[in-house]
Amino acid sequence: MLSIGIDIGGTKIAGCLIDGEDKVLREEKVATPAQDAKALLETIVKMIVSLKGEDEVGSIGVAAAGFIDAEGSSVRYSPNLSWRNEPLKAKIEEQITGEVFIENDANAAGWAEYRFGAGRGSKNMVMVTVGTGVGGAIVSNGKLMRGGFGIGGEIGHMRFVPEGKICGCGQRGCLEQYGSGTALLNMAKELVLSGKPEAKNLLSLCGSAEDLTGAMVYQAILDGDQGALGCLNQLGENLGAAIASIVALLDPEIVVIGGGVSVLGETLLAPIRKAYLEHLPAKGFRPEIKLVAAELVNDAGAIGAADLARHGSHSR
Amino acid sequence: MLSIGIDIGGTKIAGCLIDGEDKVLREEKVATPAQDAKALLETIVKMIVSLKGEDEVGSIGVAAAGFIDAEGSSVRYSPNLSWRNEPLKAKIEEQITGEVFIENDANAAGWAEYRFGAGRGSKNMVMVTVGTGVGGAIVSNGKLMRGGFGIGGEIGHMRFVPEGKICGCGQRGCLEQYGSGTALLNMAKELVLSGKPEAKNLLSLCGSAEDLTGAMVYQAILDGDQGALGCLNQLGENLGAAIASIVALLDPEIVVIGGGVSVLGETLLAPIRKAYLEHLPAKGFRPEIKLVAAELVNDAGAIGAADLARHGSHSR
Repeated sequence: MLSIGIDIGGTKIAGCLIDGEDKVLREEKVATPAQDAKALLETIVKMIVSLKGEDEVGSIGVAAAGFIDAEGSSVRYSPNLSWRNEPLKAKIEEQITGEVFIENDANAAGWAEYRFGAGRGSKNMVMVTVGTGVGGAIVSNGKLMRGGFGIGGEIGHMRFVPEGKICGCGQRGCLEQYGSGTALLNMAKELVLSGKPEAKNLLSLCGSAEDLTGAMVYQAILDGDQGALGCLNQLGENLGAAIASIVALLDPEIVVIGGGVSVLGETLLAPIRKAYLEHLPAKGFRPEIKLVAAELVNDAGAIGAADLARHGSHSR
Repeated sequence: MLSIGIDIGGTKIAGCLIDGEDKVLREEKVATPAQDAKALLETIVKMIVSLKGEDEVGSIGVAAAGFIDAEGSSVRYSPNLSWRNEPLKAKIEEQITGEVFIENDANAAGWAEYRFGAGRGSKNMVMVTVGTGVGGAIVSNGKLMRGGFGIGGEIGHMRFVPEGKICGCGQRGCLEQYGSGTALLNMAKELVLSGKPEAKNLLSLCGSAEDLTGAMVYQAILDGDQGALGCLNQLGENLGAAIASIVALLDPEIVVIGGGVSVLGETLLAPIRKAYLEHLPAKGFRPEIKLVAAELVNDAGAIGAADLARHGSHSR
């Protein structure tokens, strides 16, 4: 049976049509009309109709950032898309034929990684996405763990430092402030402001700390700049220490690092692995877990949403 | 079908025989021969034979502290019972008829609480046991979450304070050092040593800090002593802050506080709830969870082990 997946990102909407063997038959991508709720809904419906074409489609999964209810019907709260208790499932189903399931975007991407990417063959996986923020997805005993209210897996908002940096969620010291791409940029800016010798290269790229961008830091890392690499090492150490706590709690076989920053591969993974082992409780008595980079980069969210929708209410 | 549960504690072994409706038909309790592996095995087998009597028993669950493998057959590591990679399932099955499943004791007690105690009616529960240490159990979507290697739920060894107090697991800053009954006693000892006015009552009970016991602190709390209550408040605040992180990750409907210290009821729960709400990320957008004391106190481990064994390999 065919299945459609739609991934609504902050800047683009990606969609795909997959067959019963999870082969991608058709793909589409358009810009997100983020500020216009009506246009956003129209765009989603239009993409579903277009991907469907003349085919018979069994189920439709729609992934979005934010808190999704446990039934997969409403978006309780989406920070970037100005949805508040939006009954998205009903609104889409009004305009198309087929059953729709709403899914958290990190969960959908994590599920794709579990089924078709780095998590293949495991039964218990944790994915940590390191991008603008820090997100995550948990697969436990072969099932996506959505939590009691559909809002589990908020790895970025576990407390990392008591009374630490202020976070957008209203708390202090969340991992997101110490382990995200944004945190990496902030560390690099602080380094530039410090005037330390190892900041020289970064300073020459940006002119002044306020003009430093993520792209510049990325380039400096690729160039082997010691200042930028030092920041990345610190980021990896923070993530590794946090992952040790997550492993104590969830005991996965594999931890997959995804998100934009994970394209750095081993340069990011090496300090994560080192700090993870340093911080692992009772480490002599635990089997070693795998700690690897995500394999799917593009459209994992759309594919994961399509595959989860196929399992429909059984996956809930 | 009848089922037997055995809970091997550090000081006593409790066993029960339950029927198909989980009614307890027979119970037994003996001291644990903790230092003698041969006598320990004999005691367990003897209790199983005795509980069984002339009845036909379908399955046998044996709960022990420590890391249990994912198949429920071996004790990888038990801190108090000097077992290392002990094939307990095979050793018991050699001497009796019936299928045996080994279970972690905190998981077994948590499962009992989920099925028959405070977690009844929920689908996603976290239990935090506050005793000598801090332990836990996680139920996700109606299933006990054992993790990939059978060693999940180690809530007490999540990092609570970076570079914090040394823990028995080899790490620093584990929650156990800030949220256990042992931590409570240490806080009370520090208060006595400080010579502060609010330490007066505790000092009169113990004479000197080194002679202060958990029982004295407990009595002082019941008597409303401000010094001891201050320590308990701090303990509750620590636990509440940690639970906020666990909820961000796992999104349960209910958090159950069990273990010896939980007999203090609301005196412990009130500061936990307060700190939990203070530290909850994005709290305006989350449904409220229940945060309650455990209902089963005695033998929850044996009953949980018996019920889990009934589900046998299906529960794995």
